Amino acid sequence: MTGVAIVGASGYAARELMRILLNHPGARITVATSRQDESPRLDALHPSLAGRISLACQPFNADLVAEKAQVAFLGLPHTASLEVVPALRARGVRVIDLSADYRITNAQVYADWYGHTHTDREGLAEAVYGLPELYRSRIPAARLIANPGCYTSTSILALAPLVAENLIVRNDIVIDAKSGVSGAGRNPKPDTHFPECNESFSAYNVGKHRHTPEIDQVLSDVGREQGEPVEVIFTPHLVPMDRGIFATIYATPRSTPVEHELLELYRSFYADCPFIRVSGRLPATKESAHTNFCDMTVRVVRGKILVLACLDNLIKGAAGVAVQNFNLMFDHPETTALF
Amino acid sequence: MTGVAIVGASGYAARELMRILLNHPGARITVATSRQDESPRLDALHPSLAGRISLACQPFNADLVAEKAQVAFLGLPHTASLEVVPALRARGVRVIDLSADYRITNAQVYADWYGHTHTDREGLAEAVYGLPELYRSRIPAARLIANPGCYTSTSILALAPLVAENLIVRNDIVIDAKSGVSGAGRNPKPDTHFPECNESFSAYNVGKHRHTPEIDQVLSDVGREQGEPVEVIFTPHLVPMDRGIFATIYATPRSTPVEHELLELYRSFYADCPFIRVSGRLPATKESAHTNFCDMTVRVVRGKILVLACLDNLIKGAAGVAVQNFNLMFDHPETTALF
Amino acid sequence: MTGVAIVGASGYAARELMRILLNHPGARITVATSRQDESPRLDALHPSLAGRISLACQPFNADLVAEKAQVAFLGLPHTASLEVVPALRARGVRVIDLSADYRITNAQVYADWYGHTHTDREGLAEAVYGLPELYRSRIPAARLIANPGCYTSTSILALAPLVAENLIVRNDIVIDAKSGVSGAGRNPKPDTHFPECNESFSAYNVGKHRHTPEIDQVLSDVGREQGEPVEVIFTPHLVPMDRGIFATIYATPRSTPVEHELLELYRSFYADCPFIRVSGRLPATKESAHTNFCDMTVRVVRGKILVLACLDNLIKGAAGVAVQNFNLMFDHPETTALF
Amino acid sequence: MTGVAIVGASGYAARELMRILLNHPGARITVATSRQDESPRLDALHPSLAGRISLACQPFNADLVAEKAQVAFLGLPHTASLEVVPALRARGVRVIDLSADYRITNAQVYADWYGHTHTDREGLAEAVYGLPELYRSRIPAARLIANPGCYTSTSILALAPLVAENLIVRNDIVIDAKSGVSGAGRNPKPDTHFPECNESFSAYNVGKHRHTPEIDQVLSDVGREQGEPVEVIFTPHLVPMDRGIFATIYATPRSTPVEHELLELYRSFYADCPFIRVSGRLPATKESAHTNFCDMTVRVVRGKILVLACLDNLIKGAAGVAVQNFNLMFDHPETTALF
Repeated sequence: MTGVAIVGASGYAARELMRILLNHPGARITVATSRQDESPRLDALHPSLAGRISLACQPFNADLVAEKAQVAFLGLPHTASLEVVPALRARGVRVIDLSADYRITNAQVYADWYGHTHTDREGLAEAVYGLPELYRSRIPAARLIANPGCYTSTSILALAPLVAENLIVRNDIVIDAKSGVSGAGRNPKPDTHFPECNESFSAYNVGKHRHTPEIDQVLSDVGREQGEPVEVIFTPHLVPMDRGIFATIYATPRSTPVEHELLELYRSFYADCPFIRVSGRLPATKESAHTNFCDMTVRVVRGKILVLACLDNLIKGAAGVAVQNFNLMFDHPETTALF
Repeated sequence: MTGVAIVGASGYAARELMRILLNHPGARITVATSRQDESPRLDALHPSLAGRISLACQPFNADLVAEKAQVAFLGLPHTASLEVVPALRARGVRVIDLSADYRITNAQVYADWYGHTHTDREGLAEAVYGLPELYRSRIPAARLIANPGCYTSTSILALAPLVAENLIVRNDIVIDAKSGVSGAGRNPKPDTHFPECNESFSAYNVGKHRHTPEIDQVLSDVGREQGEPVEVIFTPHLVPMDRGIFATIYATPRSTPVEHELLELYRSFYADCPFIRVSGRLPATKESAHTNFCDMTVRVVRGKILVLACLDNLIKGAAGVAVQNFNLMFDHPETTALF
Repeated sequence: MTGVAIVGASGYAARELMRILLNHPGARITVATSRQDESPRLDALHPSLAGRISLACQPFNADLVAEKAQVAFLGLPHTASLEVVPALRARGVRVIDLSADYRITNAQVYADWYGHTHTDREGLAEAVYGLPELYRSRIPAARLIANPGCYTSTSILALAPLVAENLIVRNDIVIDAKSGVSGAGRNPKPDTHFPECNESFSAYNVGKHRHTPEIDQVLSDVGREQGEPVEVIFTPHLVPMDRGIFATIYATPRSTPVEHELLELYRSFYADCPFIRVSGRLPATKESAHTNFCDMTVRVVRGKILVLACLDNLIKGAAGVAVQNFNLMFDHPETTALF
Repeated sequence: MTGVAIVGASGYAARELMRILLNHPGARITVATSRQDESPRLDALHPSLAGRISLACQPFNADLVAEKAQVAFLGLPHTASLEVVPALRARGVRVIDLSADYRITNAQVYADWYGHTHTDREGLAEAVYGLPELYRSRIPAARLIANPGCYTSTSILALAPLVAENLIVRNDIVIDAKSGVSGAGRNPKPDTHFPECNESFSAYNVGKHRHTPEIDQVLSDVGREQGEPVEVIFTPHLVPMDRGIFATIYATPRSTPVEHELLELYRSFYADCPFIRVSGRLPATKESAHTNFCDMTVRVVRGKILVLACLDNLIKGAAGVAVQNFNLMFDHPETTALF
């Protein structure tokens, strides 16, 4: 039984994480922290968890976490993880960080997009990008996991086979992505006020969403043997629903594509991945909502390759993949607590 | 052409009001005020109005309003109207106040429910409750209109025939009311954050919603000839939709009720009211959404009388009835700009 | 390991049931039937289950079911269960029937409300009403479970403590109930067409919903020691959301009620029930959605007792309670696969 | 006062059309037809119109229509218009056809995409494509208007300035389009059953949506002076909301684009169009919902030109533009009844 700490327990991803871990036979949540002044009980923070857990949150304290837990999941906002990770690592606690702070390997790129100097270069150098479908071999021994973003997981998983096989032009990729509103977090804002975003569809952060460099970086790494970097056009939109990321991707093939061959490539590429469902059907976010699955298909339209992929942003896009990483790190079957 | 001021132009009811008034042949919006520091243009505050009006908001100034407008619509929060109304009245501006500040005739009841001493007893004494279906004769000459609340309009209109005819027990009335989220206003709050209230149905302010004394007061006035005051049990709920109030009302009859006679009573009671649609069908909020209609029916179930009524909270429950009052005050046909 | 049959596998409750059973360590789905002509695979019928189960549906055949399964869950429409249950029982298969066919103990009342003569009086006489919180002792040995309706579970659980303790007037109970749209089943109908019911709130079947006699019957049984039957006024409404039942209940107390004592009574009444969460907070359907919990609170308003209760109609209101019954019947802990 | 017929009055676009025409000072609805056997009253077909119109529908009869109306709006499904238009034209009735039957000028292309031989070549030759922003000069004299599709209006209006100025590569245009569910019409189908499409985002008809050849044709016409035809990749998606089309368009510029110059081009191109709102802000469907406006902006991202545009599919995408055409045909100001 592994003692688990939840650092930053008040958000939606943390709630999903705890919901999943409460059903995990090899994990026990032993400590939870929150930056709120009072120390709320978890079932007051998250009424849906009432009857399942009644632990009270505490202020963050690295010694306390190290005493009670072997691994800490971090549900902190970007830049806050930078303050916590070194202290935990110094005390031997393994970390699965759900923020973006350790995802961008180039500290300058991080500074450019996040407006904040990276203060833990050592951690950054050691962090493993926690997308098991692509980096499974590196995860078991990892001491610091940079858990991927939700848009990025969807986009990367959808494009990896095409990039790995060098089938597409790498600087002519359009990712038209759509997200449910829980992706914006739990803090009320004008844009996520119900009467503003309900019954509305809109684009936001066009050309400047922070998941762009993360997608570029990981796909460039996937295709590194051919050397040319990937540079995507990424456009996020807000959909009036709770959960789900849907990406419609347009890629220019390097030679004439054949739809059924591409579908076969995808099936083969993900043959050993229990959470990737490649299908000839067009996906819908509802079919993967509340699951750790990523659904995808590939089509050829007037010479372009289209990939359509979706997943639940809070699960496969955050808490679920975090537990998938935990399973690999602590030698549980990859699907434990995730079906 | 009547010059119209919008005092407090940033909220949802103010937006609906301007949208309606822009189609009114006898009204021109000449000034708009907002308490925000900057002076936003109305089409920046309300992008849906772009291409229709480009007036810039100004800070409130009673002299300016009096110079430009003969009537002011107040879209201010409760208690803020108390600061503005006396100044406007002193300058001869007629006022249609959408807040609750002049609805409760008893200043002590106001203080009890709103937690604020009433500072304008003179205005309070003169204010006319702006529900044209019940107080039509008093509205044309009114200098200060207390525009009714959305839950209250629905509830009062649904019960008025039964109370006026003294058909029900006056202290055994249950109003189970449901509202769309726009009723909560435009300021983001945790309860109205999309991922919290979407896909959820909940009750709130059970037993203590401020529309309770307003309903009691007006229905007691409707039934004043029989003397016994009305005291309702009012339970508000939040529905994951933008617009609409739905009230399911349970009343105990004083003698055995006959459904078709009740329906006939309702039709007759509202025969001269162009915005009341009495029907044998069960209503649905969508059918009155974006209109100034109030739909209702009446049923008998196991000896109880049920009234089911609905309207659009921003229109018939706020901006539409305000224009209906304006029409009566300025001698326009009651339906002008409201169909 | 118990072999389980899913008879009538195409609906929403059947899908939830299979999703839950796939995580049950003591159950294996060995056969699924559907009345559709073709024999679709379960993952084609329910794409969300892809990657979890790929069994093909078969036409119903009692011998086949008896050969492969010890228990059958029936997800059939009302009256269809009557054709299947006797054949299964004759072959020794235990049955958990999610339809209404065995819930109403009086065959004449069944005929009156369902418009169909009851053709299996023997089964009816033996059926156990599958609400574990009230009939836990009778379930382990049951051979035929009549799984309760979703509105009825909510209403009965919310009222049982008051009726059992004889605290309220039994013919003056108002149940104002609201349901998400999945409660209407999977067949497209005009009323559940998205552009009709989205952004709308409406009442339906006022005074004639079939869950009325079921609520009357079970609550009368709960309060049988005092002899007077219960007769409720039940009003269902449709809420534009997927899941959840919310009941706001108004009861007239027999003596002056005290809120905190009532809350204590509820906590005590359900002390041994792991899926009932009694709280001082007002419930919201979202907090119990996708769980087997029923949340409730009790309030006193102007002398009336209000109970506010909610649950997920497809889980605690259908598939979840069915598995709860299965657990009791096959000697598993009551919460297995349900947390 | 122009007598107006509504042929095919039961759908959503017909309802919006009647709602608008009821406020039009120069139009009177004198006859409405429906293919339903009974002859429902319009307020029974469309309860939201109760209190406004109570005309009964009649079966279609060309003589009757010709006797009562100078113009007929056709709200019929595709191919049904082909049966009605010749009869009306023979009797001198001007026609505004909301179906696709007269939009595709090449009868073979129509046959290929709609699976139906075109049986009215004469009508087809005379029909004017009813997009006033592009064909304003031809509309006043038109005897037969092919009212544009909703996806097509959005796409064409968003791309016309770029194509007219020959700024983009004509066979490398991606239109990623998203529609509210009312676009699918009023007939219940599995895909539009609330529990299926609510809380879900999905793609459909990828690579084969019938609006594709219409977009190709009109944009090719807009850019005909440079000769090269336009060929778009068009991907429709379904959004869980009632109304609105949003198009995110990716175009490859022929030379390095400058964002503010493009914005200026758009403003200038649509300077005389009262219903086109070009803005630097990103649009949201809610801001144009329930209006006849089309909102758009243009951006440059990593060398691509992005156009983001939206409108209300039932108004600017159907009924509103139909009235805009009516206004031009009958010499009313273009905006009459549309603000």
